[in-house]
Amino acid sequence: MTSEKNRVVIFDTTLRDGEQSPGATMSHEEKLEIAGLLDEMGVDIIEAGFPIASEGDFAAVSEIAKNAQNSVICGLSRANFKDIDRCWEAVRHAGRPRIHTFIGTSPLHRAIPDLTQDEMAERIHDTVTHARNLCDNVQWSPMDATRTEWDYLARVVEIAIRAGATTINIPDTVGYTAPVESADLIRRLIAEVPGADEVVFSTHCHNDLGMATANSLAAVAGGARQIECTINGLGERAGNTALEEVVMAMKVRHDIMPYTTGVDATKIMHISRRVATVSGFNVQYNKAIVGKNAFAHESGIHQDGMLKNAETFEIMRPEDVGLSETNIVMGKHSGRAALRSKLKDLGYELGDNQLNDLFVRYKALADRKKEVFDDDLIALVTDAGAPDASDHLEVKFLRVICGTEAPQSADLTLRVGDVDHQSTAQGDGPVDAAFNAVNAIHPNSAQLQLYQVSAVTEGMDAQATVTVRIEEDGRIATGQSADTDTVVASVKAYVNALNRLIMRREKGGSDVPEVTYKDVS
Amino acid sequence: MTSEKNRVVIFDTTLRDGEQSPGATMSHEEKLEIAGLLDEMGVDIIEAGFPIASEGDFAAVSEIAKNAQNSVICGLSRANFKDIDRCWEAVRHAGRPRIHTFIGTSPLHRAIPDLTQDEMAERIHDTVTHARNLCDNVQWSPMDATRTEWDYLARVVEIAIRAGATTINIPDTVGYTAPVESADLIRRLIAEVPGADEVVFSTHCHNDLGMATANSLAAVAGGARQIECTINGLGERAGNTALEEVVMAMKVRHDIMPYTTGVDATKIMHISRRVATVSGFNVQYNKAIVGKNAFAHESGIHQDGMLKNAETFEIMRPEDVGLSETNIVMGKHSGRAALRSKLKDLGYELGDNQLNDLFVRYKALADRKKEVFDDDLIALVTDAGAPDASDHLEVKFLRVICGTEAPQSADLTLRVGDVDHQSTAQGDGPVDAAFNAVNAIHPNSAQLQLYQVSAVTEGMDAQATVTVRIEEDGRIATGQSADTDTVVASVKAYVNALNRLIMRREKGGSDVPEVTYKDVS
Repeated sequence: MTSEKNRVVIFDTTLRDGEQSPGATMSHEEKLEIAGLLDEMGVDIIEAGFPIASEGDFAAVSEIAKNAQNSVICGLSRANFKDIDRCWEAVRHAGRPRIHTFIGTSPLHRAIPDLTQDEMAERIHDTVTHARNLCDNVQWSPMDATRTEWDYLARVVEIAIRAGATTINIPDTVGYTAPVESADLIRRLIAEVPGADEVVFSTHCHNDLGMATANSLAAVAGGARQIECTINGLGERAGNTALEEVVMAMKVRHDIMPYTTGVDATKIMHISRRVATVSGFNVQYNKAIVGKNAFAHESGIHQDGMLKNAETFEIMRPEDVGLSETNIVMGKHSGRAALRSKLKDLGYELGDNQLNDLFVRYKALADRKKEVFDDDLIALVTDAGAPDASDHLEVKFLRVICGTEAPQSADLTLRVGDVDHQSTAQGDGPVDAAFNAVNAIHPNSAQLQLYQVSAVTEGMDAQATVTVRIEEDGRIATGQSADTDTVVASVKAYVNALNRLIMRREKGGSDVPEVTYKDVS
Repeated sequence: MTSEKNRVVIFDTTLRDGEQSPGATMSHEEKLEIAGLLDEMGVDIIEAGFPIASEGDFAAVSEIAKNAQNSVICGLSRANFKDIDRCWEAVRHAGRPRIHTFIGTSPLHRAIPDLTQDEMAERIHDTVTHARNLCDNVQWSPMDATRTEWDYLARVVEIAIRAGATTINIPDTVGYTAPVESADLIRRLIAEVPGADEVVFSTHCHNDLGMATANSLAAVAGGARQIECTINGLGERAGNTALEEVVMAMKVRHDIMPYTTGVDATKIMHISRRVATVSGFNVQYNKAIVGKNAFAHESGIHQDGMLKNAETFEIMRPEDVGLSETNIVMGKHSGRAALRSKLKDLGYELGDNQLNDLFVRYKALADRKKEVFDDDLIALVTDAGAPDASDHLEVKFLRVICGTEAPQSADLTLRVGDVDHQSTAQGDGPVDAAFNAVNAIHPNSAQLQLYQVSAVTEGMDAQATVTVRIEEDGRIATGQSADTDTVVASVKAYVNALNRLIMRREKGGSDVPEVTYKDVS
């Protein structure tokens, strides 16, 4: 019974609050992939999106609901029947659906729809009742709870409970609270609100003052049994509570935080890398748990201590979060079996055909690079820019002339269907020239939304991963590629994005945004 | 009296614990620049380095001490007379010097030098006494204090106080503690250790579980009046407490944390950017306070709320931390006065000659880019790759041919002294080819230690900043350059680093590392 009492539910909102970060938009396929990884790692509840926000959000939430294995699938909705109905239409495909509805209850937020306290209370009663009539798992959130007057907060929480909410989530929407305050608020709600013992209290923190993790854990100490969080702390402004931090803190300091979760922590590094890649939000080197340096030791005393006893400076082991211990993996003489085994360590299980294709590209890379690092391999595996039989366009040859004297120029051979086409184009800089060469062969009206270069590993022979996101008639497509030559990676990423756009156009796009209105809690 | 009682001393260790991050090594000039910025922003104490660790550390601490205007300058030393003497030799040049000495007191750390509790206690007494005989401002730290047995910790803290320590710093060396525990530890030490009321207690937290900021503030609630921290939370593993987070948290939540510091928060963004640049540790978009997205709002409700009342979603204003409100600044028609005024907003005051030089480069950039962002301007100002009259080498012309078919080749004209030289070279990738062309003209034995590309702004016409760090006979030099063409930026950064190496060779290098042994507390 103790263990049941101390089980903390992990509610991941990477695909909703995380995806809402300016610039972090994910494609439909990326959302499905991340949801699959969350489900597989034992996340209890996945907030998959905000169904009314767009056709794309609706389609993603519906498909994630259909695919869910173990996780509860949740959708967000504002406090009106239309939002809630649309949310239900999407999540009802799940084995275990949840409707999450919210309204801003602080004075600043009440002023926006211009509702009196009584009018808002009535709205809350009606919408929660409506949601509960559709679904027996309903979460309600008073947005900006930490800046809502105590009396009013207690009143509306009671109303939501009476109306049938099964989880009450207390959002610190602006990242304003501190640990003692966070614990006290939950403790007081549980002690004073009638019916509080029949629901689960949840905490939702933002990291504006750098305290989201501590505030979430303090809320648990105060009696909350659900933490809302995101992978890598992705989210608007300074982001949300990082899933990896709360999960590992409760493990490492189980002595003072005797709580358990259902998360398999050894899956953390893999999903962290995938979220970083698809969102384009790189994790800083010194990020807790998942940063590149989180387990790296520099100083003499540290290394000395480490050799004698790893516990001297390590409170967790790299393998606890799924990081293989050594970083330098293989050179050009490594074989197929070694590659398969290494990939398995990194969380990738490939079929024979995939492995064969990858091995060819691995050999080509090993010829160019002295040392192939884990991150290089991950870049290869996830290199969406690698040609695929179904691709309409493929880069066959590229030569770019660049340097101090403009204009830069590019010679390109692009296969379109079965025919090779050639073009030469100029531009401002080598990438611009090369993109112009692509557009000369394949005219299109796609607009560039994001162009991002990140170095995968260090050194002059580092691979660069380039992410290109384009938009045409409301359809969004993201392409990526990795290469030691940034210009080559850029063109392959662009062509990859164009291929996805073509595929989507043929299928008839399901992710055309209808309403661009988005929302948070 | 209240204000005096609640004044929290900010102790910055960016140049010591921060610089110890694997890969974050800074050059002598970079350390002096950062120390100057810390001093100017009102940091009370600057831990400038670990003088015994190397000749370079010694030289940096000495020169920072000589240049200090208001800050106390502190150096680190282990618990032996030689370390302490060497530390004193470096810091004594400061108007207000401090010696910081430490020893690991937890069972795991006592086992390394294999000292009994009594032997270590004696060592602490002797070394603190020695330090106090040299300097009347002495800080002592029991490394891994949070994993030291309470009785022994209380005993050695008392010994250090009796021996003359004026500040007792309590390090959470492995980032293990949680807020309630952190507050209790300081509170209990102050309550129970004889003489505790005569010294300042300090907190030094690491962010391994994501709670460094909350733990530091909890320690202050428990009675600590010094916070050890770094800019951007730089530091080994997951880093140290971030200066910007604790300073802003005490400002924003002054209602529940009624403490003040001497830090001018409007200088935060500028120093954050400089530390990110010189360390090569980029700040993640969703980093609290200083991340690119920390003040960015995406969702419809948020933007709607922001337009009606900024307080709805903002607990601090961008300008509070020195971020100018608008990001898009100027186009190609902006004049010299606008440029000067914009730079002033960004924290750069340029002389007329510097401004003229910058204006020429600004115009060239504006011709190539549609929109010039704040970050583009900062890249221009800090573009160490811009030619300088004293430079021995200058890139006059570069043309690189790259693409899918190896080998890549580079044609280069490099001015050496007053004479232009030409070369052509091949390589694996465009950057390798171009570096080979430089080496053909200017043979050298420098080894590449770091090569890093970061995109300064977004878009296909984004400028890339390239950082190159090279090492020759123990001398380290870092070069940087920004350009819309990554290859051009790379070569200019490399040549810039070579120029610095030449300059240092002529001067007779003062930063030749002697001992590579480094240490933390």
